[in-house]
Amino acid sequence: MCIDASRLLAELRELSQFGKYKTGVNRPAFSSPDIEARRWLCSKMAQAGLAAEMDRFGNVYGRTPGVRRAVLVGSHTDSVPFGGWLDGSLGTIYGLEIARCFIERGKGDIGVDTISFQDEEGTFLSLLGSRSFCGDDLRAEVARAKDKDGYSLAAAIAGAGLLDRDPARLNPLRHLGFFEAHIEQGPRLEGGNFQIGVVTAIVGIRTLHVQFVGQADHAGTTPMAMRRDAGAAALNFGTLLTECLESSAGADTVWNFGGITFRPGAANVVPGEAELFFQARDTNPATLETIERRARDLANECARVFQVACDITVVLNVPPTAMDGQLSSFIDRAATELGAAHMAMPSGAGHDAMVLARRIPAAMLFVPSINGRSHDITEDTSEDHIVTGAQVLLRAVELFAESRTRL
Amino acid sequence: MCIDASRLLAELRELSQFGKYKTGVNRPAFSSPDIEARRWLCSKMAQAGLAAEMDRFGNVYGRTPGVRRAVLVGSHTDSVPFGGWLDGSLGTIYGLEIARCFIERGKGDIGVDTISFQDEEGTFLSLLGSRSFCGDDLRAEVARAKDKDGYSLAAAIAGAGLLDRDPARLNPLRHLGFFEAHIEQGPRLEGGNFQIGVVTAIVGIRTLHVQFVGQADHAGTTPMAMRRDAGAAALNFGTLLTECLESSAGADTVWNFGGITFRPGAANVVPGEAELFFQARDTNPATLETIERRARDLANECARVFQVACDITVVLNVPPTAMDGQLSSFIDRAATELGAAHMAMPSGAGHDAMVLARRIPAAMLFVPSINGRSHDITEDTSEDHIVTGAQVLLRAVELFAESRTRL
Repeated sequence: MCIDASRLLAELRELSQFGKYKTGVNRPAFSSPDIEARRWLCSKMAQAGLAAEMDRFGNVYGRTPGVRRAVLVGSHTDSVPFGGWLDGSLGTIYGLEIARCFIERGKGDIGVDTISFQDEEGTFLSLLGSRSFCGDDLRAEVARAKDKDGYSLAAAIAGAGLLDRDPARLNPLRHLGFFEAHIEQGPRLEGGNFQIGVVTAIVGIRTLHVQFVGQADHAGTTPMAMRRDAGAAALNFGTLLTECLESSAGADTVWNFGGITFRPGAANVVPGEAELFFQARDTNPATLETIERRARDLANECARVFQVACDITVVLNVPPTAMDGQLSSFIDRAATELGAAHMAMPSGAGHDAMVLARRIPAAMLFVPSINGRSHDITEDTSEDHIVTGAQVLLRAVELFAESRTRL
Repeated sequence: MCIDASRLLAELRELSQFGKYKTGVNRPAFSSPDIEARRWLCSKMAQAGLAAEMDRFGNVYGRTPGVRRAVLVGSHTDSVPFGGWLDGSLGTIYGLEIARCFIERGKGDIGVDTISFQDEEGTFLSLLGSRSFCGDDLRAEVARAKDKDGYSLAAAIAGAGLLDRDPARLNPLRHLGFFEAHIEQGPRLEGGNFQIGVVTAIVGIRTLHVQFVGQADHAGTTPMAMRRDAGAAALNFGTLLTECLESSAGADTVWNFGGITFRPGAANVVPGEAELFFQARDTNPATLETIERRARDLANECARVFQVACDITVVLNVPPTAMDGQLSSFIDRAATELGAAHMAMPSGAGHDAMVLARRIPAAMLFVPSINGRSHDITEDTSEDHIVTGAQVLLRAVELFAESRTRL
């Protein structure tokens, strides 16, 4: 089988017109452009011969008729505010194209179902669509969810006219596995001249809120030795933890001090309070445990030295998700067959595949991001890489389907 | 001569009723309580036999009649928002009491003039009153000055009914020297069981705004080695400069990282921008030069290591002000005569005396602050220390006047 490259690229360009903003898209979940894009996608699926519908939460789900088993392929079409044209869209249009290729081929008892999940980016509720699809009980979260302007998810669902729809559901008897293609959102493939990334695992994320509380004092009249400087404790903690991680962390471990605040925050007042947000990601849960333990030890040590109090809260704890070895091996084999340079790599970002992986085998394929940019209108991937990614994924799905075909 | 301790304490308590807030006062320059307090002070001065008036900028200035030369004694009666009851008020009421003691004594050709300067705390324009009194041309600054709510100084002056008044002016032929008493605003006198601080110099202040600019990136997908992390550069800079100062700074040097901001500031985004406010204070201008040079070197080194850009701006540069040796020696001698434990010390905060010192000999006396607190409603000084301070200052003024009396 072979994907239709010009059709694929044309549909990606067409999708990028919904919410178009300069070279990117502004298509947050349930915005008008998002719902219009989903209606467009639904009609595209129907034209391809799929039984397609938009569900209660905005998931656009297209089933291949006449088969009892299917490989699920897809991603999401919502974007972050003023985001890129490929994040989510790429994997969604790959799903449409691959399902269509299977229908056009017209044989085999395993088809391809395709889906665009809603609100992967968390405008209202991160991973809403895939979590609903996988059967999570979201009633309480949905009832609470609001966007940053205070507009409720319930109102957004009603506004999109979806209140009377049922949620689409994963069927473990039907769905043999899930493939999601995505832009890398990082510079590793481009940097190494690879065309394909075979994702080994989606990293776990642990975010710590670290707070030091000392005593605000006049920065001119309080001798250094008499201060209880929460800011100095925070600066020292940041540097010590960085040094510790630089000397001990594995090659794929990443971390970030993304936010820091001193209070009251004036140049002439010794900070009485300081808080930092620290985040670490790794594919190994034990590594995240070790990092959290080290952060706690160092924060307590800094608090002791600077005579301040210290409090650490885990504000996000997402466990790592391994991708299915067999499904990933089909991506690897497809890339080898097609002569596409490929590397195994973790995904440093979360994806719908991490929700699906809790229920069925799941795998991910990455294509290079130019300059590693994403979540920004500068996000892009060369047409060659887009086409190669689709062809490799089609072949991987085919290999997987063949492996499950009853002889 | 002897101060009247109960009169002094009663007047301090009476003054603290204007803008009273819990145990402190909320009396920013030109607020109703500030202007009411100034009118009260003006009438108190008049009752004491001084020729008193409020000038164009709100300075309350009382001259001893019938003398051609005078020692000027005073401070300010405006407060920071929700500040303490003694900051400025103490030195002002000392001035009133000492001028009254001289008038009551009724001999000598050198009198005492007393003054409460306006807006020492910078509600509109820091040190407005003393700068005007010393003849600074403030027209442009006054025309621009606004409080934090955008209310203009010009409107405040008009609102207080002062538009038709002239500014009071220092007269170098009349004013032989300036004495200002103040609470220490720090813990050193209390910590060492001293009753009196003899101020050697008011520290210079150098405030640097340090900005690092790198590249905001996804904190999960961007490998550590490929980041241009402005936040990491800022943390490292803060720690390195602190270590450098800890190992090299003199005993009286103080410094502070009072504010820090990362942008965009999210836990999952590598900071593309980071800025810090760093402030150093010392009585030696060369020390401040050295500290600034070290800060610049370290910031540039951090910028190089983290592959970010770096920009440093001096946002405040106040030179140190030495107090007059002869006037200070009279405070020292008065304290010795009266058996008051005293120490020489720098002032870590700015005061009106630093403006006066540019024109006439100036000296400062500190009394202990309980727990070193100031600029807060918890600010306090024991009555014993208040009375001792006034008695020592009266004696110092007397010694100074005697030294200048023409035989």
